[in-house]
Amino acid sequence: MVLRIGVVGGGQLARMMIPAAIELGIELRVLAESGGMSAALAATAVGDYTDVDTVLAFAREVDALTFDHEHVPQDVLRALEAEGIAVRPGADALRYAQDKLLMREKLSELGLPVPDWARVTEPADLDAFIAAHGGSAVVKTPRGGYDGKGVKVVRSAGEVAEWFAAAAEDGRDGALLVEELVDFRRELAQQVARRPSGELAVWPVVETVQVGGVCSEVIAPAPKSAGKLADVAEQIAVTIAEGLGVTGMLAVELFETSDDRLLVNELAMRPHNSGHWSMDGAVTGQFEQHLRAVLDLPLGSTAMPQPWAVMVNILGGPEEGGLDDRYASAMEEHPGVKVHNYGKAPRPGRKVGHLNASGDDLDAVVYEARAAAAHFQG
Amino acid sequence: MVLRIGVVGGGQLARMMIPAAIELGIELRVLAESGGMSAALAATAVGDYTDVDTVLAFAREVDALTFDHEHVPQDVLRALEAEGIAVRPGADALRYAQDKLLMREKLSELGLPVPDWARVTEPADLDAFIAAHGGSAVVKTPRGGYDGKGVKVVRSAGEVAEWFAAAAEDGRDGALLVEELVDFRRELAQQVARRPSGELAVWPVVETVQVGGVCSEVIAPAPKSAGKLADVAEQIAVTIAEGLGVTGMLAVELFETSDDRLLVNELAMRPHNSGHWSMDGAVTGQFEQHLRAVLDLPLGSTAMPQPWAVMVNILGGPEEGGLDDRYASAMEEHPGVKVHNYGKAPRPGRKVGHLNASGDDLDAVVYEARAAAAHFQG
Repeated sequence: MVLRIGVVGGGQLARMMIPAAIELGIELRVLAESGGMSAALAATAVGDYTDVDTVLAFAREVDALTFDHEHVPQDVLRALEAEGIAVRPGADALRYAQDKLLMREKLSELGLPVPDWARVTEPADLDAFIAAHGGSAVVKTPRGGYDGKGVKVVRSAGEVAEWFAAAAEDGRDGALLVEELVDFRRELAQQVARRPSGELAVWPVVETVQVGGVCSEVIAPAPKSAGKLADVAEQIAVTIAEGLGVTGMLAVELFETSDDRLLVNELAMRPHNSGHWSMDGAVTGQFEQHLRAVLDLPLGSTAMPQPWAVMVNILGGPEEGGLDDRYASAMEEHPGVKVHNYGKAPRPGRKVGHLNASGDDLDAVVYEARAAAAHFQG
Repeated sequence: MVLRIGVVGGGQLARMMIPAAIELGIELRVLAESGGMSAALAATAVGDYTDVDTVLAFAREVDALTFDHEHVPQDVLRALEAEGIAVRPGADALRYAQDKLLMREKLSELGLPVPDWARVTEPADLDAFIAAHGGSAVVKTPRGGYDGKGVKVVRSAGEVAEWFAAAAEDGRDGALLVEELVDFRRELAQQVARRPSGELAVWPVVETVQVGGVCSEVIAPAPKSAGKLADVAEQIAVTIAEGLGVTGMLAVELFETSDDRLLVNELAMRPHNSGHWSMDGAVTGQFEQHLRAVLDLPLGSTAMPQPWAVMVNILGGPEEGGLDDRYASAMEEHPGVKVHNYGKAPRPGRKVGHLNASGDDLDAVVYEARAAAAHFQG
């Protein structure tokens, strides 16, 4: 019996599941949005993931269904589950990844540390929140945002007048999420995998560096995180994975505040950019672990063979040609760096690949990863 | 420009090139012998690799052509090269992998240490060789042998009468290869990669354990090999790679004799079972390195992140079902072991996968790999 996993979405996360599936002899099938996507090699179907019949037909042939993104509508997810399909993560869990207001409510209910937040439907309520929080705040659309989109720092409700209008028009409750602007020292991320039968596996907490709202660099483990900080991050992620019933990979983005607290920023219920370092920096990378978790197989070791691992994203890429036009120089100068190419056409700001480096000396590893990435920029 | 590599042959070696190709954004195309083979995911053509037109049509669309095996006939290889196709390794080099008599002649000419050997066309010559070498010898058919097939230890020429007859009938010169039975302490293997432009990369020399002529276990690096032994092994492999003009991966199987010499046993001009440990035990595994080498890209680091890596083959596999029927128990008890499943139906003695383990303590790593493999036996 060959195990079969279906992945909805053909982006780079689906693509990076393919090597892990090949090594484990798992048949990976991808329902891609269109032809020629990152995960095209495993695309067995092309179709609309918001169409129940399309997703059902795809999902009936697999042992477990999982996702490249969190955008499959709840009614589709519910229809799959009604047919007994193993949806991982399930519809109940995915609600919290799909709606940031629901997520904030649930995390508060679980007693987890989050930034001050409020559900606002009126500009006046937003202005009141801003006034109560030092004159500025972060407004988020509850749905559809990623990589800094749908997130805006404002000093008055007038700056998001269009968002209020759009929220009121979308047939839902017209609410936006507002959060305090956290005075943070740095951003962290905690990866955890959870099987349906309950087993959990955590990697070390990592430091993430964002530029313009987009992840640029990840250091594993987060420097100076050993001890209490790591324990708290792990406990938060485990509480979320269990409390929200997540199966597969969960990434918890955290703020480390200037007064030494950890606050939950965002969640992702899938392999996440902040975990790409694990592909080369841990015994079991997040993509292999995700496949094991969604099939309810025992999870792999998350130990790091070397003390430090650093990931640097390749954004944009060379103006002409592909990343491979720069392989000769990058590989010549950096023989120890691992290149991951998403097979996407370069565009300014687009994530087209990433690099991983590992070693004993953090400064040297950071230098190596950044210097190698520089070969692919612009 | 997406780089394209064509692989002739759809076995597990082609299969294990796919993950490396995905990560580097290389388009891998496979010319498989039939449908449903190990490398089926990348199979873009099914056809006869001994047919010039079939292979030519396949090879015209790729940047470099390489192989899952060494059986493509010389006339096919020459026709490809005459068209300017980048054949890696080339026809000149592959001759020595295809004909053990030619190989022995060439290695002797290069001054490399080999077992005493002779070309024999008559039973009387073989009996004379046996008498001169202590009453027994190893007879090999110059072509077509692998994994212990076409290799026989004999005490008299009568034991290979059929081989003489077959050699005389095959339209070639009717010769067999005879070699002294080497009094060896253990078997080693040395992997080296070579680019067409000359760059070389060597991994540490490894110890290989054969059972019934089939590789069972590999320990990297070979215990007690640091220093002179490693230097000699490396120098032998480099001399062969350069002397025979090999491009891509070369595996040199060596005898370590009881009187402390290294003798060359066999060669393989492709990724080889003795190098599978490098997939998880070295910064750059042999499959990624092979792809880089055949495209003439700079080679990756062969450093080992951890002191020891051990590979154990999975032979036969469970009588019913596939390897994945045993994942639950194997993964539960051995979370740090990396499983590589070739997607082949189990058959007694057939290589259906392998496992890698790594760590600081050799005894513990050997135990781990063997104990995990035991879950898949029988």
